[in-house]
Amino acid sequence: MAKDKKFVKEITSMEEDFAQWYTDVVKKAELIDYTSVKGCMVIKPAGYAIWENIQHELDRRFKETGVENVYLPMFIPESLLQKEKDHVEGFAPEVAWVTYGGLEPLQERLCVRPTSETLFCDLYSKEIHSHRDLPKVYNQWCSVVRWEKTTRPFLRSREFLWQEGHTAHATAEEAEERTIQMLNLYADFCEEVLAIPVIKGKKTEKEKFAGAEATYTIESLMHDGKALQSGTSHNFGDGFAKAFGIQYTDKENKLQYVHQTSWGMTTRMIGALIMVHGDNSGLVLPPRIAPVQAVIIPIQQRKEGVLETAEKLEAQLKEAGIRVKTDATDKSPGFKFAEQEMRGIPVRIECGPKDIEAAQAVVVRRDTREKITVSLDELAVRVQEILDTMQREMLERARAHRDAHTYVATDYDSFKKTINEKPGFVKAMWCGCRECEDKVKEDVQATARCIPFEQENLSDKCVVCGKPAKKMVYWGRAY
Amino acid sequence: MAKDKKFVKEITSMEEDFAQWYTDVVKKAELIDYTSVKGCMVIKPAGYAIWENIQHELDRRFKETGVENVYLPMFIPESLLQKEKDHVEGFAPEVAWVTYGGLEPLQERLCVRPTSETLFCDLYSKEIHSHRDLPKVYNQWCSVVRWEKTTRPFLRSREFLWQEGHTAHATAEEAEERTIQMLNLYADFCEEVLAIPVIKGKKTEKEKFAGAEATYTIESLMHDGKALQSGTSHNFGDGFAKAFGIQYTDKENKLQYVHQTSWGMTTRMIGALIMVHGDNSGLVLPPRIAPVQAVIIPIQQRKEGVLETAEKLEAQLKEAGIRVKTDATDKSPGFKFAEQEMRGIPVRIECGPKDIEAAQAVVVRRDTREKITVSLDELAVRVQEILDTMQREMLERARAHRDAHTYVATDYDSFKKTINEKPGFVKAMWCGCRECEDKVKEDVQATARCIPFEQENLSDKCVVCGKPAKKMVYWGRAY
Repeated sequence: MAKDKKFVKEITSMEEDFAQWYTDVVKKAELIDYTSVKGCMVIKPAGYAIWENIQHELDRRFKETGVENVYLPMFIPESLLQKEKDHVEGFAPEVAWVTYGGLEPLQERLCVRPTSETLFCDLYSKEIHSHRDLPKVYNQWCSVVRWEKTTRPFLRSREFLWQEGHTAHATAEEAEERTIQMLNLYADFCEEVLAIPVIKGKKTEKEKFAGAEATYTIESLMHDGKALQSGTSHNFGDGFAKAFGIQYTDKENKLQYVHQTSWGMTTRMIGALIMVHGDNSGLVLPPRIAPVQAVIIPIQQRKEGVLETAEKLEAQLKEAGIRVKTDATDKSPGFKFAEQEMRGIPVRIECGPKDIEAAQAVVVRRDTREKITVSLDELAVRVQEILDTMQREMLERARAHRDAHTYVATDYDSFKKTINEKPGFVKAMWCGCRECEDKVKEDVQATARCIPFEQENLSDKCVVCGKPAKKMVYWGRAY
Repeated sequence: MAKDKKFVKEITSMEEDFAQWYTDVVKKAELIDYTSVKGCMVIKPAGYAIWENIQHELDRRFKETGVENVYLPMFIPESLLQKEKDHVEGFAPEVAWVTYGGLEPLQERLCVRPTSETLFCDLYSKEIHSHRDLPKVYNQWCSVVRWEKTTRPFLRSREFLWQEGHTAHATAEEAEERTIQMLNLYADFCEEVLAIPVIKGKKTEKEKFAGAEATYTIESLMHDGKALQSGTSHNFGDGFAKAFGIQYTDKENKLQYVHQTSWGMTTRMIGALIMVHGDNSGLVLPPRIAPVQAVIIPIQQRKEGVLETAEKLEAQLKEAGIRVKTDATDKSPGFKFAEQEMRGIPVRIECGPKDIEAAQAVVVRRDTREKITVSLDELAVRVQEILDTMQREMLERARAHRDAHTYVATDYDSFKKTINEKPGFVKAMWCGCRECEDKVKEDVQATARCIPFEQENLSDKCVVCGKPAKKMVYWGRAY
């Protein structure tokens, strides 16, 4: 068993050093590897399979709302990037520039897309003429590049994978409706599939997207009490439309500007899965997103009938729609258990000669480690029930953790003390001015995560300056 | 009907100008649009949906053979690209270079991947240590960039979408087996799904991939008699392994180099679909790849019961697994017919008041324009039969076209005359030397498309130089 212990031992405990624990899990669960390209990562099979499941589930939900997928170039000419003033100011400092094509210098620099608003606007300005051409509800799955100085696997890297939806509508109301619709879609996806509870709300002016009229966000809380922006949906109003001249003739034959939105979710959600659900044995994947939901581990597999039984059980579970594998390698059972735990496979099914004699198997839940003895006859049904229960309880547990780490502050001293000493969200009132946000940032390195849709009246005064309060805000330190 | 005619009239006929016909179809079927970025295209919803179906079908077939998907960075440091000599010589002249990250010049230039052999090798050199780590069978779906001087939608653009598989094996035999396995997979996919018949064979030394020991290819013939390389599978031997130091310890504890392969298929297959199956009314999509397989067009749709019937039929067909839409817009039926034809939707289902009275609908095949009256009771079953027949006949027709445009030449004069006057493949014997290939290229601008697996002995002499022949080769002009 020495080898098994070593396998687990190599992870730092999360209580000791959360950042190191995270890096250890990412590496040991074989989600990611570093590369020769500074700040860029390889997403390995175990990591990419999670992303494929995220894509599949999001894409299905998108298409139900009328989204059409497209692909736009990865390059943006410098002049195009500069068309919307706030947008270029927000992104220019962190883009990668292509200056040579083959052996020739380019006449105009091209940036590698950090996001594609400008290209979609360029397309829409050519495609949209009449109210009959509206709405346009396009999305693309691609990678984007932002030249970050410090990087962390999944959370912040120079290249990452995402989807970016870009829409154009006849009216401001329709654009706002689509913005909120997609925010709700993201929130439902996070809670139902990733078992990650989120706070829905609006970003402050300081925190909103470069070029947007309003940015909406879903914010989640990691196990260490830091916040993670998990998906954003932007209402652009007609700002980009005016900069790019995207106009249509309405039913009265008058020229109007379109109203636009954009919304995105990225591979950082894999980081969120790790930091919300993981433990000191490694990853814990919610069943609905897990590429492998159950692994069958034969015990004393050389004894007659053991591997044959494992094979039969695998076939039964597959037939029932469960994503299952059998680990029949020559590693010891203990080693296989440790591996299953490290990789976060939701349940393992142990089955040896004694179990077979008793026509049963032992199902072990990854999250609670509960051992459940199940009759082989009803294995598929029971495993599905256990997976469903686990999915539900993981969300409940994450919600309980978040609620237990959400505090209220009504004066600035206790606000600062809470931020400094109790990692989590702090709910507090705000006057609405930028200066108070800047002060909080400077004093305790926290930001306004969002102005939640569900407002509470905690006091009449801004927690920072004491002036009349306008909104309740979730504050916190964030990834 | 004036408007309907105009819609169709805007396409140049393929007999008049095939290149212009192709561009017209690409634009009018709304597959692609040009962008502000020279040589880069937008793949629009109708085009991207075809690519999604290609991806879905190929990915399923890959995974059945044990392929695992990953994602590697889009950037390659210049020093890494230079590690394999032939490879860098082949690609350096046509790569895009990133020289700035944000406001700072980079210490080392990064090229935007034209292909990812070097990155996969870099990864494998870190991941592979023991024979237990083999084989590695990775694939990625991504875009790549090649700085082409002249571009054409789908066929040749500065950025295109593809998949690139990269594998590492313990032995040369295993690598060769995987190379051929993937070539066969591509060939089956082309014939079964795209209804495009292919010639399987080996590339000559002159035409093989930069850095490969052997390149295998599937070659297809377009309607205008030009060849299209439709998928390639490369056996690298241990050349990259030696350049990148990818070694493993075998069962006898000896250090060995791995043997590698790579294989790819791209969005140019959408171009192939257009050029193999299209006609003067537009695109014709084989049912198995068509995003929409059937469109219901209600006739006199304002009359009572027409739209209700259309709705019911749509639900029935959907239930039967047919990808179906109803066009209930206020355009005229004639306009809708022309649109369905332009977009290549395999069948349209016409249904008006008289049809409903007779409990029937008229199904019109896109390829033959055959009109089939079908009882509403059995619509779903009959439409599926018609789609299956159409899929089969499209492949047969493409094969007959190719065979009718495949010629034999046994002397150089008739060889040149055939190439110049009869667009298609020319089968002819070859001595195996580079000089003869160069002479053919110079004299008639044709290339050795492949040395087919199915060899024939047409004569004893090389068609070019008259020296003893070694192989039969398919020659042709190519896209």
